Parts: sequence; structure tokens; C-alpha cells
Amino acid sequence: MVENDNIIALASPSGIGAISLIRISGPESIQIVNNNFKGIENISLINQEANKVQLGYILDNTNVIDKVLVTVFRNPKSYTGEDLVEISCHGSMFIQQSIIQLLLEENCRIANAGEFTMRSFLNGKMDLSQAESVADLISSNSEASHRLAMNQMRGGFKNDINELRTELLNFASLIELELDFSQEDVKFANMKELTSLLNKISHNLKDLIDSFKTGNVIKNGIPIVIVGEPNSGKSTLLNTLLNEDRAIVSSIPGTTRDTIEDQINVNGVICRFIDTAGIRSTKDEIESIGIERTFKKIEEAEIIIYMIDYSNLKISNIKYYINYLSDINSKFSDKKLITILNKEDEKTNISIGELNEFNPILISAKNKINISSLKEEIVFHIENLTSQIDNSTVSNSRHFNLLNKTYKEIYKVKEAISDKVSADLLAIDIKQAIYYLGELTGEISNDEILGNIFSKFCIGK
Amino acid sequence: MVENDNIIALASPSGIGAISLIRISGPESIQIVNNNFKGIENISLINQEANKVQLGYILDNTNVIDKVLVTVFRNPKSYTGEDLVEISCHGSMFIQQSIIQLLLEENCRIANAGEFTMRSFLNGKMDLSQAESVADLISSNSEASHRLAMNQMRGGFKNDINELRTELLNFASLIELELDFSQEDVKFANMKELTSLLNKISHNLKDLIDSFKTGNVIKNGIPIVIVGEPNSGKSTLLNTLLNEDRAIVSSIPGTTRDTIEDQINVNGVICRFIDTAGIRSTKDEIESIGIERTFKKIEEAEIIIYMIDYSNLKISNIKYYINYLSDINSKFSDKKLITILNKEDEKTNISIGELNEFNPILISAKNKINISSLKEEIVFHIENLTSQIDNSTVSNSRHFNLLNKTYKEIYKVKEAISDKVSADLLAIDIKQAIYYLGELTGEISNDEILGNIFSKFCIGK
Repeated sequence: MVENDNIIALASPSGIGAISLIRISGPESIQIVNNNFKGIENISLINQEANKVQLGYILDNTNVIDKVLVTVFRNPKSYTGEDLVEISCHGSMFIQQSIIQLLLEENCRIANAGEFTMRSFLNGKMDLSQAESVADLISSNSEASHRLAMNQMRGGFKNDINELRTELLNFASLIELELDFSQEDVKFANMKELTSLLNKISHNLKDLIDSFKTGNVIKNGIPIVIVGEPNSGKSTLLNTLLNEDRAIVSSIPGTTRDTIEDQINVNGVICRFIDTAGIRSTKDEIESIGIERTFKKIEEAEIIIYMIDYSNLKISNIKYYINYLSDINSKFSDKKLITILNKEDEKTNISIGELNEFNPILISAKNKINISSLKEEIVFHIENLTSQIDNSTVSNSRHFNLLNKTYKEIYKVKEAISDKVSADLLAIDIKQAIYYLGELTGEISNDEILGNIFSKFCIGK
Repeated sequence: MVENDNIIALASPSGIGAISLIRISGPESIQIVNNNFKGIENISLINQEANKVQLGYILDNTNVIDKVLVTVFRNPKSYTGEDLVEISCHGSMFIQQSIIQLLLEENCRIANAGEFTMRSFLNGKMDLSQAESVADLISSNSEASHRLAMNQMRGGFKNDINELRTELLNFASLIELELDFSQEDVKFANMKELTSLLNKISHNLKDLIDSFKTGNVIKNGIPIVIVGEPNSGKSTLLNTLLNEDRAIVSSIPGTTRDTIEDQINVNGVICRFIDTAGIRSTKDEIESIGIERTFKKIEEAEIIIYMIDYSNLKISNIKYYINYLSDINSKFSDKKLITILNKEDEKTNISIGELNEFNPILISAKNKINISSLKEEIVFHIENLTSQIDNSTVSNSRHFNLLNKTYKEIYKVKEAISDKVSADLLAIDIKQAIYYLGELTGEISNDEILGNIFSKFCIGK
């Protein structure tokens, strides 16, 4: 599976800058660059000390393309584990392209997405979950998503997984022993002890699986849905929250607002504010579809801001809202529900007695009254979420799926034990669980798995 | 004038990529990075060998921001001539910003535009015209503009300038001698010899000044204006030329069309096609203003494509066109004028006898007939232009202005000689000319000159 041809790509972001970086990796990489390089100190790259920078010229025959810095890294002490050369050139589009074109005329090709990192994995420089974290690290746009990726890169829950796998392997060998000695009637495996081991493994898997909910929302941004009756002030609130973001965002500039309008950084976590169509009690079918969509967004949300128009509080509707809110609460008890009474400055004299149990926050989105209380509620929940991030937080959906599959296999084994299924059948399920965990760390991999993983990388990494 | 604080900036293009590069330069730069770095090999950056790459972690206290490669360059063997550190980190926006923010808490500041290169100049690593070429090199987007910048970076016409300056200094000392010995009636300076020297200098200056026309259009793109009567098919021709660009553009991708619609790369040179309002014989004042604008574009153009509608060739108008074309030809004899008879497939039976002297090319822009003949004419002129590029081609307008000023001073000296003006007055003009040439190479500079030059750079260079 290890390819050993030579690959080249632009490693720095595309565009114009002071300096651009081109990387070439593979057994002939040093020779290829050397064929087109003349060092100021006249040292051939072939003989150059590893990890040392040399100033010189990239030449197309006698034609100078650029004055560059070249660094040679030698197998296995490089990112890919192969011989690797970094060319640091002036950051013009023309120069970047010309150098790459020039070297492509030699024995090398443009790298596929993630191919440098894939080679790093294939050459044993990092395990698969670490390799996967590289893409997450590069795309992380907040302190929290960066922390998740960095934890994973530095080993993360790999230790947990390895521990689980070792325990499963121990269990498998116990079963094997039982298989081997069954005719001799040596009942080596104490079923009670095994069940206790399985319970422990299940428990650990469950913790990792449960951490995905937090890991996933933090990695992809916390969905905060704003729902309420038409004209309750949802869009006004959204604008107020977005326009005042400086008060609650972190100090890292350039993060989000240019790309997705309703996305801001709150205390180092990306929050995705989602406006919805107004909901109301209706029998009209088309409107029901709209409400259906709103309900879907509510399902996907982490925080629900439920807005009620205080200036138009019809007693006849209150009960509907109450039921609706109770529904949400009972269906999604792990979500954070924040009830807002908007337009508090235009409030009627009607009592809100029936809403009191939801601890509503009285605000005016338009006149920016008491928005800070709402923010505090949001920040409180976010801090609660981020405090849960640790080395064992799972944020990769491939990992999540494999952990779930393992969990189901373990469950099957436990059921089989209580059903007194024969040891050879037990062994099949347990081996499947071990297989899934091997897929997770990359001890078991194939072209399809790797293709899926690395195709999500950018070219050059 | 040499600042010696510590400056930091992102050197790679902004955005997300596999790898980003951060540079910090100044006397404490190594210490500053070392305060926030832990090498895998546990070598302090303070003691690290120069030009050697070390793998390690950038830490905010115990919190890992990124795994990075760090290279230390030591004064004077660095780009700036100061101690300089390059940090090669993962290319996420968050990491780039976090590392810069972290180091800004130490004794350093964000670099101004071009400040790394300005320090390089101030520390004698390059002269001013070389420093200026760095910005041109980075923004060059075609083979020809790249060649211009690279020529200048590698010395370019600096040698010519230095030669001229030496000759002027020789002349100045001859004059000084004459001043000193005048009372002793030692007519040391042979006026005939001096005049011959001045003529030679004038001639050299003139060549450099004349080269600016070519250098400037190649650097900024060759303006090709398409003029003609309304509905003669100008926009159709523009589209036909742009859509067929693959046939005549170079193989360098990503150059132009996404940014400016009517800009293409023809044989390694950027061509800027400019569509214009139709011209016609009119006494209507508003329309005259439109024609005025067209005329302005014609003035600025390098190539003029003059289109005539062959299907609607009114004899009464022909004379007007002829006059107009003759006008253009006589006013701008150095421009390339290409006359097109468009809609040749819809041509009338009217003779074009009177137009024959302009060697019109018969085409159909719409049906793409004979476009290749037009392209050949364009390519021929461009090749003629690019063949003129050499080390002495001036493409920088600051240089052009200073060469012009010098030329005028030399002219004044020559006039003064023929007017038999006294040597002390001659010396004043000659010193002024020497001063201008010193400004050009940077031997004479001040904050204002440098500020103007480097403010046009990007930050990080």
C-alpha cells in the first residue's frame, strides 16, 4: 500500500504573500530539487546536512525562477518519513506555479489530498486517529475546536482505545483457552469475571460515545435555534446578538462573520445562530410543513431560545406554547431551553403566571434591554460544555460510528453469555469488536478506509 | 534610521493551508520565540545552530498551541540582516493568530508593510532598487513581468546607474579642479571632452528612459483598446478573444480571468482588453464626452484594434474613419494599429479601396472567422515588445521619474557649457543630477522616500 513515487504540492495557503512553501516528498525528492537548484554556497543538496537551510536559486536551465531557501529532510526524520524537501520561495502565483511546473517535468507528480499525511501514517510516524486530527487542526477556527484537535493529535483517547483493545484481546484469549481446553472440561474462564470485564468495557465505550455529543457540537459549532410565533422578534434578536458580538467574542480576529452571517465566536466556541420560520397552532397543511422544518432544527439544536411576544400575549395561545415547550423539554431533556419574553417594554398587563415555571427572561430585542441576561445564560451553558472537553472527548464521526459498532458487539457478547451461547460463537463477536477498534486506530486499514479519510484533507497536507 | 525593535508577521499568504509561516526579526527575536518554545530535542533556541530546523511545540504556559518547525537565522546571515526566526506551523487561522498573539505579549510588535525588506535594505543586504523589485516579484503574474522583476532583483540596470554616477562624479571632480585652479589659469578641463562625456551620459539615460514604455506596459499589462462605430461588433470580438484564450495563453493556471474579466495571458504577457463606447461623427455634446473618454483610452493603449462594420459600410462615413485613423496614426506613431473589417460574411459589395492602405483584416467576430490572423498580429507585436526586455529595462515609475529628472539636469549642464556659464554654476546642476541618481539606488534616502516605497509592500515581506 505504501506508494514510493515522488509527490509535490504547494503547502502554504494559495494566494499571494511574502513567502510560499512548496514541499516534495519521495525517494528521489532531493535529487529532483537538486537538478534545478544552485546553492549560494555551492553545496549539492545530495550532500547537504539534513534539516539545514540553504540559500540558492531555482533555475530553469540558466533562467532564474527565484531566489529560495531549501531545506532537506532525510528519511525517516521528516513529516512523511521519506526524504522530503521544502522550498521557501517568493509568494507570487507565477513563481509558485513555475517552480511546481518545473519540478513536474522531473519524476514527480502533484500530491493527492492528504497524501503527505497519509504517507506519514503509512510510514508509522503517527497512528490513524492522529493523522485524522491533522485535518481537524487545520480547519479549527476556535479555541475549543483547536483544543479538541490538539488533544487528539497528542494521543487523545488512543490510550483509552488501546487499553480497551488489550482488555478485549485478553478476553478473546480467555475464550480461546476455553475453546482449546473445553474437551478436557477445564472451565478456565470464570463467567462472572468475564461479565464484569465486559461491563467495564461497555462503560468506557459508553463514556467515549457520550462525549461525542459535546465533541461534535464544539467541533462544528454549537447550533442555537431561535423559535417563536411569527413577529415575536426572532430576527431582531438575531441581529442584536450578532451586532453586539464584540462584547462576548474572543479576541481572535478574522474568525467567522465574513463567511456565515449568523456565526459568532462566544468564549472561544463557535455558535451558529439559526433563525426559524414562526411556529403557531395551525391546521393549514403548508404551514405545518414549515413548522415541521422548524421542529427539525430544534432537534438538531443544542440551545433553544424560545421567544414569546410579551406585547401580544393572547391567553388562548399561552396554553399552546406551554404544551409545546413541555413537549420539547420532555423529548430533549439534554438541550438547554431558554424562554424569552420579548418586547418587555411594550408589555400588556396580562399575568404570566403560567409561564413562571420556565423562568422566562424579560428582554427587548429591539431596544437592547436585558440582552446581557440572555447572553449569560448562553455563556453559562457553553462553559458547561467546554469544561467537559478532555483527552477522551470524541469529535470525529468515523470514530463515533466505530465506537458504536464496538459497543453493539460487546452488548451481543454479554447477551450471548447470559444465553449460555457456546464459546466459539462468543469468539466471533469479540473478534469483530477488536476489528472495529483496530480500524479506529488504523492497525487495520485498507485503501477504501484511507481513501475516505484523506480525501477530506487539503492538497499539500 | 535603523529601528532595532522586534517585529513579527505572517509571511505566507493569509488563509487556510497545510502550513503557514510566521517570521519574527530583531535583536530579541530568538529569545522571544524561545520563551514560548519547547524543542523535541530539548535544545534551547539560544544555543541552536544557525539555519537549522528544530521540531518542537509552541506553548502558552503548559498549553500546546501547535507542533512546529522553528529555524533560527543569525545576524547578519538572514533576510533582514538581524537575528530572525521562522516558525512553520499548521495552516489554521486560529493557530496563525494564536502564535502571533502569544508572541506579541513579549517585546515585539506587528511589522509594518515591507518592514522586513526595509530592514534588509537598511542593513545593507540589498540596494534600494533591488528592495523595490521584491514587491514587483511578488505581484508579478506573468512570465514577462516576473522576468522584469527578477532582472531588477539581480542587479538590473543598477550597474548602468552606478557607471553613470561614477562618470558624473568624475566630471564633477574635473569641474572642482577647474574651480580650484582657475586663478592659476590652469584650464585643466577640456570642454570638448566634457561635452562628449555628457552626450554619452544623456544617451545612456535616454535609453533607460525609453525602456520604461516597454517595461511599464509589460509590468502592468498591455492595454489593448477595441474601438469602432456602435454595433460594429466590439463586444462580440472581446468575448471571442476571451473565450478562445486557451489557444493563445500560456500554460500557467490561475492567472487572471477570475479577477478581471477582460485580462488574459498571451505568450507570457498579461493583455488588458478594453472595450469602448462606440465612436461616431457627431455634434451632440454628451456623445462627444463619451468619445472624449474613448480617445483617452486610445491614448493609454499600446495596441488599438479599430473595427469597421463591413455589413454597414456607408461611403459617407468612410472618409470620417479614414481621417480619424490617420489622426491616431500621426499622433501616436509608436502604437500598433490593427484595422478590422468585421462581419465579413455579411459584407456588402461596396469597395474598400480607400481603406486598403491600412491593410485591414477581414474577420467575423460572431462566427469566429479569421480570428487567428488578428491574434497573429497581436502576438507579433507582443513578441516584439518582450524581445526588448533586458537587464536595463526600467519598469518602476519612481526610477523613471528620477531618470527623467537627471536627464533634465544633464541637459541644463550641456546648455550651460554652450552658454559658457562659470564652472561653479555648472557644479550645482551636476551635483543635483548625482543626487537624483543616488536617490534611485538608495545611497541617498530619507524616511519619506522609504515610507513611500515600502508602504506599497504587503505586510510580512
